[in-house]
Amino acid sequence: MSPAQGAREKPAGPSVTGRVLGILSAFGPGAEALTLSGIARTAGLPLSTAHRLVGELAAWGALERGEDGLYRIGLRLWEVGALAPRSLGLRERAMPYLEDLYEAMRQNVQLAVRDGHEVVYVERLAHPEAVRVFSRVGGRMPLHATGVGQVLLAYAPAPVQEEVLAAPMAALTPRTITDPSELRRALAAVRREGVAVCDGMVDLLALSVAAPVRGEDERVVASLSVVVPSAGAEPRAIVPAVRAAARGISRALGAPSARRRPVGVVSPGASGT
Amino acid sequence: MSPAQGAREKPAGPSVTGRVLGILSAFGPGAEALTLSGIARTAGLPLSTAHRLVGELAAWGALERGEDGLYRIGLRLWEVGALAPRSLGLRERAMPYLEDLYEAMRQNVQLAVRDGHEVVYVERLAHPEAVRVFSRVGGRMPLHATGVGQVLLAYAPAPVQEEVLAAPMAALTPRTITDPSELRRALAAVRREGVAVCDGMVDLLALSVAAPVRGEDERVVASLSVVVPSAGAEPRAIVPAVRAAARGISRALGAPSARRRPVGVVSPGASGT
Repeated sequence: MSPAQGAREKPAGPSVTGRVLGILSAFGPGAEALTLSGIARTAGLPLSTAHRLVGELAAWGALERGEDGLYRIGLRLWEVGALAPRSLGLRERAMPYLEDLYEAMRQNVQLAVRDGHEVVYVERLAHPEAVRVFSRVGGRMPLHATGVGQVLLAYAPAPVQEEVLAAPMAALTPRTITDPSELRRALAAVRREGVAVCDGMVDLLALSVAAPVRGEDERVVASLSVVVPSAGAEPRAIVPAVRAAARGISRALGAPSARRRPVGVVSPGASGT
Repeated sequence: MSPAQGAREKPAGPSVTGRVLGILSAFGPGAEALTLSGIARTAGLPLSTAHRLVGELAAWGALERGEDGLYRIGLRLWEVGALAPRSLGLRERAMPYLEDLYEAMRQNVQLAVRDGHEVVYVERLAHPEAVRVFSRVGGRMPLHATGVGQVLLAYAPAPVQEEVLAAPMAALTPRTITDPSELRRALAAVRREGVAVCDGMVDLLALSVAAPVRGEDERVVASLSVVVPSAGAEPRAIVPAVRAAARGISRALGAPSARRRPVGVVSPGASGT
């Protein structure tokens, strides 16, 4: 039963790497500050093991111990995480366009990527007077319920689409799409229009307009959205600005379809640059 | 010599945790995408060990393997890092004030914290037409050369100040303070004025105005700055806006000195709320 029993090369439990990752996984939204025993319990580790591993993580800067004795995720782990191309790398390229859109709309502007069956928000600019949104940077939402999610799902590989369509879909509001046939039609509309409009699907008071961002191989790598108050919203007035910003980011990422065309040349690809 | 030799409980090299952290440390600015052998070399690990640990990290989402075969930091690690209170937690509270300042100034707005003898930028909003700045989110700069750095150093514990004053200071431009006595005077001025003005110390073309952000125990936990073109800059016109935004963030963080005072009450602390 004791994990130190004998000196076998392959213990029955998770590897040390798995234990370290288990410790990091113990932290999450609403669990930003934990005691050592809380970490041990959540990660399923003996206190002595947790003590040793947490000490190593804190020495490196992955965790920080506050004066209150609680452990929190450390600045160094955030710095390493900031190197993820799908987070801050993407964000850095997108930021000028997000800022332009934010200035022009004075509403919420969001940038998100897909991870499995969820949306992960990598940036959010919220105007002080804009409608409240529930997303947060680093937060997740289901694909079927959000504008950015429907865009990311519409351009996801077919198996991902089928998995989402086959699974139960949570109704965040009475207006959230939860019917597979309805979602299938919505995704087809997104592909046809190049834009998703979701009215009241996350919050009855908010409407989002989302467009796809493409990478250098033309695949959709992210989605951009503007969230405005549902009451009185005119999606037609928002769509062009969202599309233009998404195209600008796609160009910054090297998407061939978003290249600037030389003045006076109409057909794409002419002149070779 | 072989790491698997025998079945000793304490190998001579770094622990598994140390190896895992060594793999993460192999990534950095300019080294965002690495081959497996590049990771092994930088982390000082045998290829077989690196292969196994990288596989575990990729399965969890700490690393992602691209179609080009290169490994990059994964979205999941960024998500965990986003829980660091000194990064996105701070940023979330500060963002409305940063956005207000950005709207008002249409220049660069930065939020930074101190880590050891360096500044780490946790947010940067850059207006498309603003003067170019060299900071990047997640990036570091020396304390002595930057506005945010001088603020963070001015309010740092005395031993940290003495260490920085005793060490050689790099001249990023001919105007960077590199003389300990001069820096000591500059820090005293920051504490007296509650603001740092750095003209041409990082880039001859840029001037920064920085102010301290205080936490719930009144200690300075971050610094906010606006960076404008040096030519024609009028710091006096910038200081009040920077001070006001820093105070707003301090209030959002619960700093008692930044509490709103009830209307009509002049003395601080009266009425108990």
